[in-house]
Amino acid sequence: MLKYAMIGGGPGAFVGAVHRNALALNGQATLVAGCFSRDLEKTRELGLELGLDEDRLYATPEEMARLEAGDIDFAVVVTSNEAHYPNVKTCLENGINVMCDKPFTHTSAQAEELVGLARAGGLHLAVTYTYAGYPMVRQMREMIARGDIGEVRFVNAEYPQGWLAELLEATGHTQASWRADPERSGGTLSLGDVGSHIEYLVPHVTGLKLTRLAARLDSLVEGRELDDNGAILTEYAGGARGMYWYSQAATGMVNGLKLRVFGDRGGLEWFQEDAEHLRYMPLGESARTIVRGSPDLLPGAMAYSHTPAGHPEGWLMAFANIYRAFCDTLISNAPVDFPTGEDGVRGVRFIEACLESSRDDTVWVEME
Amino acid sequence: MLKYAMIGGGPGAFVGAVHRNALALNGQATLVAGCFSRDLEKTRELGLELGLDEDRLYATPEEMARLEAGDIDFAVVVTSNEAHYPNVKTCLENGINVMCDKPFTHTSAQAEELVGLARAGGLHLAVTYTYAGYPMVRQMREMIARGDIGEVRFVNAEYPQGWLAELLEATGHTQASWRADPERSGGTLSLGDVGSHIEYLVPHVTGLKLTRLAARLDSLVEGRELDDNGAILTEYAGGARGMYWYSQAATGMVNGLKLRVFGDRGGLEWFQEDAEHLRYMPLGESARTIVRGSPDLLPGAMAYSHTPAGHPEGWLMAFANIYRAFCDTLISNAPVDFPTGEDGVRGVRFIEACLESSRDDTVWVEME
Amino acid sequence: MLKYAMIGGGPGAFVGAVHRNALALNGQATLVAGCFSRDLEKTRELGLELGLDEDRLYATPEEMARLEAGDIDFAVVVTSNEAHYPNVKTCLENGINVMCDKPFTHTSAQAEELVGLARAGGLHLAVTYTYAGYPMVRQMREMIARGDIGEVRFVNAEYPQGWLAELLEATGHTQASWRADPERSGGTLSLGDVGSHIEYLVPHVTGLKLTRLAARLDSLVEGRELDDNGAILTEYAGGARGMYWYSQAATGMVNGLKLRVFGDRGGLEWFQEDAEHLRYMPLGESARTIVRGSPDLLPGAMAYSHTPAGHPEGWLMAFANIYRAFCDTLISNAPVDFPTGEDGVRGVRFIEACLESSRDDTVWVEME
Amino acid sequence: MLKYAMIGGGPGAFVGAVHRNALALNGQATLVAGCFSRDLEKTRELGLELGLDEDRLYATPEEMARLEAGDIDFAVVVTSNEAHYPNVKTCLENGINVMCDKPFTHTSAQAEELVGLARAGGLHLAVTYTYAGYPMVRQMREMIARGDIGEVRFVNAEYPQGWLAELLEATGHTQASWRADPERSGGTLSLGDVGSHIEYLVPHVTGLKLTRLAARLDSLVEGRELDDNGAILTEYAGGARGMYWYSQAATGMVNGLKLRVFGDRGGLEWFQEDAEHLRYMPLGESARTIVRGSPDLLPGAMAYSHTPAGHPEGWLMAFANIYRAFCDTLISNAPVDFPTGEDGVRGVRFIEACLESSRDDTVWVEME
Repeated sequence: MLKYAMIGGGPGAFVGAVHRNALALNGQATLVAGCFSRDLEKTRELGLELGLDEDRLYATPEEMARLEAGDIDFAVVVTSNEAHYPNVKTCLENGINVMCDKPFTHTSAQAEELVGLARAGGLHLAVTYTYAGYPMVRQMREMIARGDIGEVRFVNAEYPQGWLAELLEATGHTQASWRADPERSGGTLSLGDVGSHIEYLVPHVTGLKLTRLAARLDSLVEGRELDDNGAILTEYAGGARGMYWYSQAATGMVNGLKLRVFGDRGGLEWFQEDAEHLRYMPLGESARTIVRGSPDLLPGAMAYSHTPAGHPEGWLMAFANIYRAFCDTLISNAPVDFPTGEDGVRGVRFIEACLESSRDDTVWVEME
Repeated sequence: MLKYAMIGGGPGAFVGAVHRNALALNGQATLVAGCFSRDLEKTRELGLELGLDEDRLYATPEEMARLEAGDIDFAVVVTSNEAHYPNVKTCLENGINVMCDKPFTHTSAQAEELVGLARAGGLHLAVTYTYAGYPMVRQMREMIARGDIGEVRFVNAEYPQGWLAELLEATGHTQASWRADPERSGGTLSLGDVGSHIEYLVPHVTGLKLTRLAARLDSLVEGRELDDNGAILTEYAGGARGMYWYSQAATGMVNGLKLRVFGDRGGLEWFQEDAEHLRYMPLGESARTIVRGSPDLLPGAMAYSHTPAGHPEGWLMAFANIYRAFCDTLISNAPVDFPTGEDGVRGVRFIEACLESSRDDTVWVEME
Repeated sequence: MLKYAMIGGGPGAFVGAVHRNALALNGQATLVAGCFSRDLEKTRELGLELGLDEDRLYATPEEMARLEAGDIDFAVVVTSNEAHYPNVKTCLENGINVMCDKPFTHTSAQAEELVGLARAGGLHLAVTYTYAGYPMVRQMREMIARGDIGEVRFVNAEYPQGWLAELLEATGHTQASWRADPERSGGTLSLGDVGSHIEYLVPHVTGLKLTRLAARLDSLVEGRELDDNGAILTEYAGGARGMYWYSQAATGMVNGLKLRVFGDRGGLEWFQEDAEHLRYMPLGESARTIVRGSPDLLPGAMAYSHTPAGHPEGWLMAFANIYRAFCDTLISNAPVDFPTGEDGVRGVRFIEACLESSRDDTVWVEME
Repeated sequence: MLKYAMIGGGPGAFVGAVHRNALALNGQATLVAGCFSRDLEKTRELGLELGLDEDRLYATPEEMARLEAGDIDFAVVVTSNEAHYPNVKTCLENGINVMCDKPFTHTSAQAEELVGLARAGGLHLAVTYTYAGYPMVRQMREMIARGDIGEVRFVNAEYPQGWLAELLEATGHTQASWRADPERSGGTLSLGDVGSHIEYLVPHVTGLKLTRLAARLDSLVEGRELDDNGAILTEYAGGARGMYWYSQAATGMVNGLKLRVFGDRGGLEWFQEDAEHLRYMPLGESARTIVRGSPDLLPGAMAYSHTPAGHPEGWLMAFANIYRAFCDTLISNAPVDFPTGEDGVRGVRFIEACLESSRDDTVWVEME
């Protein structure tokens, strides 16, 4: 059984519990230490509730990293964005493997520094792009790799939400407030929060390499400083093209991540709110609905599928699959099959490129 | 009973029969004359099959316009695109009202000339943007006008089809061949064929005025000269923003016109393949599915709805509704409530702007 | 061009216009005479509006049948149920082919008498089981006949509506009032109105022969005398089994006719409100969604399909397909491929058997 | 932290892992002992893998119950059906609370005996009717209790699966074999396996009390002795009526539990494969789609909802909710809000009544 510590994820921080539950579900790792909040009292309160030893509840991440190094197998960093960089750094400098929430860091320089530290220390550094943990995303990836839709020509990826259709940050709403604060979120609101998932998933699923992009970031809600919506045109090595839309101001949308990929021999469509199904449209034939758990699942997808077809698994299981791959690597040196620090770097560069393009009235920006 | 003549729509031309059926369904107008083909034999064959007098079947549109002027109430122009301009012109010059298929003309200069001719002659000139005839599109328009979703902030409109995912024009396929021929289609393939519907519908439904756009037109299928896919960023007077996607190379998509409009008080979504329903997402409340024919229909939508809820109406009825509005104006001078030549002008200017933007690597183009 | 007369379908009678529109759409027959109402004034009003000669508008069906015999090719009977029998009889006795609305007659004795009259006179007698006119119902029939789902084992057919969830007949609502009146409707309300469609469709689609049934008819709405809901267990020759549910008191349901057929090699599902699609579930494989107009359509279904895939056709076109088959037989002696008087007889017997079973507390009733 | 032991759920028994994961997810109870198999070697293998002490792995449930009594808070019984009765009995006789899988026992006499034992011992006896743990099932229950759809008139509940559309039991398939064996399953195959869920859910959700039923059990697959499909007519105190359909031979269906409830003021529909949504159809208004996690959730449903709307939860979380309620009662004496032994008794009586009715050609059977 692996042992892990958590930084962030204190009382009221929804996502901390998610990480802990995902790990509990897998049964591969036990939480043994924590610095859940800047406020030690809060850390203590939660830590005791979770059954941790009082002397493994820390006032600062630095202290924790220093004292726990050697006693834990990895740390989970689930603070607000601006604290990712220093916290991950502290862990890596103390020789601790890290799973960090996304978006990774504020700048690509920071991200590269962290990747460098991990490499130098022979450490594993992972980033929780959760949606890659869904079996049917994995299925999509494998079907494309196998050539089921031929050569990919066009990608339409979107991730609209509606929960920031009002100026929630003006009401003191916790989640909205730090995300909408340029200092804490890193210069973008929704691009970092939801657009980043699209950025990760498209190459993950299609194998395409982004060569340039043109972005227009929008602040649709009056009074909002940062972007809450954006449209991005993309082009990939080999000639494929795409377009992305992300939003948190799309009134009435819930969590509408959708991937549509079109090749010369077929198309594929996956919608996160109906995550159990994958629509496969072979050229010239009737569309098929592949159900998670069915015999049509390819091996990697089947490995991510845990309950029989028709017994929905959901988002937490996707989260757990990311952690399982991470822990498999830590436990048995399984090949890296989770989103890494390098992916995090690429993600931050994407955000930087979008900001640059948008600032210059949607000019094309080349990717490295 | 009005009398009309048809130009184009000969044997094998699918859309000619659609126009005739839509008019038959309404019972407001009878076909009395025709020049269905460049080949008089074919015109005769079809004309006799349709029960027309042999002496009202003509070798050329010019002859028909000259001889039928005064005997018919309007002409329907359903030729391939390049012949719209001369045929409409002939009709208008002979004092005949015209319903013309879309896209209207090859150039905005031609379109403006036709509008000028119609105005000068006190004639009605209409363009068949069919989808505006759907009751639930009308409902969307009325709900937005009434303020049901507040101020519109963002529009996402898409129209993907997949039937040109192969290079059909190389196989001699009739529909594909003229559309893919730059001379006949007017410089665009799919932008004119399906993108034009988006262009018309967005302002029709939202009341927004397009101020600038940035477009990237793609030729996804190898060997194709014109665009078969495109992504367009849009901005509207007052600050609203949008994005459009059209495609005929989206393998596996059928006829996927979808309109999504987001305001500060709600959102609306309509999908043409499920045309009977409109999804309404009021801010902070559960989404509602408004069914055509239900008590929630507003007056204009109800006027377009003919069968009880749950008895699907479909595309031909939408077509018929466009014609009904046109005929109502001809018969009883009802206020113009159909897509006009002016709309056609706007549509051609949109195509020209997209071509210009795309040529210059997706530069923003101002709409006068 | 065939000539026809209409009995019933006067002002305010929705279904009369539907029959006329379906015939107009096909372009095979012209309305030339009518007795639209028991009130000659109303008949005249509508007849003139429809452009009929005044002297072909009649006070009684008998008069019309006598005077129009020889001048018309068929009559359409769209009165309320109780008048079907005398009106059809009058027509047949005068040598006129008939298309009659469903449910056919009040008693099977009446139905048999009419079938006998038609046979004796060498006349065509048809019944408008509309839903058989849908292309995807036809597709279902052909796929089953071809063996695509193997041997049929179980059928689940349902037809819930909700428009009679209130006691509308107590409010003077026209449609509700005659249907809920035992004298006029023939002893059932919803069984005759919607259950009858299930009865026709199941054998039509599956080829199964009903051998016995057990029914419970319900009056869910307080104060209602006749059935507004019912559940029927069915058994077929060869051992297949089934269950039917019909309702007009299923609050919130619209027009939810659904057919599900399960064989030993696959399943099929069709839902009228999404009439363009057929779900095909081959044993052990991913389910397919067959779209109307696609290459997977079998010949008979394709013959019923008129617009390209993705351009919804709807209910009126299904109606028109029934009429087309009828007119094809009258015009060119095409093999009978429409619901006949014999089907009407079987339908009335089914209703009688359900009433008998329900009266005796859901006892099994053998079908001859 | 509660301590529990497990009986059954050995290697290869899918459902054992589900129970353990659900409990792990809640974090309220730890597995400390087990008798996972009739084969002690297998119990040892799994127990060690799960980190249990070797001396708390037992050869027989009797031994375990005797030696663990006092050291554990509850036992989980997840053996095949025929062993539920003796195992639960052993636990209760040793003063151990029990969570037992469904269907509860083979005979209602056995079930009553167990309930009596639990009462006499002041013990909690629960049955895992999993689907009651879904937040939107809870929402349905609360909305009906609050009167949102008025007085319930009709229930249509169905649970079709297709995985037994072939004679799997003849191929040595483990799950199919014991279920299809009359000795081990208790005289029914699919009625006990899936029909039992309907039986529990309908009164749970609607508050209705079943007064009589008429059932026809079918063996659709040739060579199968027990039922793999069935249709049941139901009647409830107060006059409401219903119909149930269950099947495991509905080729192509996956796990299609669906509940539809119609009242005089509205209708509700929930489909397990789309468990996150509840369709609410208020009389005369547009239907609403209530999403799990949205503000429209009532308190009890919200208490069962753990992730934000649009982040699907799924079946395991439903399972966990059942266990949470059970553990809440054990930990803090929370009011019983989980399916109990009494519910289990009612379930077995339902099965007995269906068997009796079907044996006598679908005669009505009164419920006590």
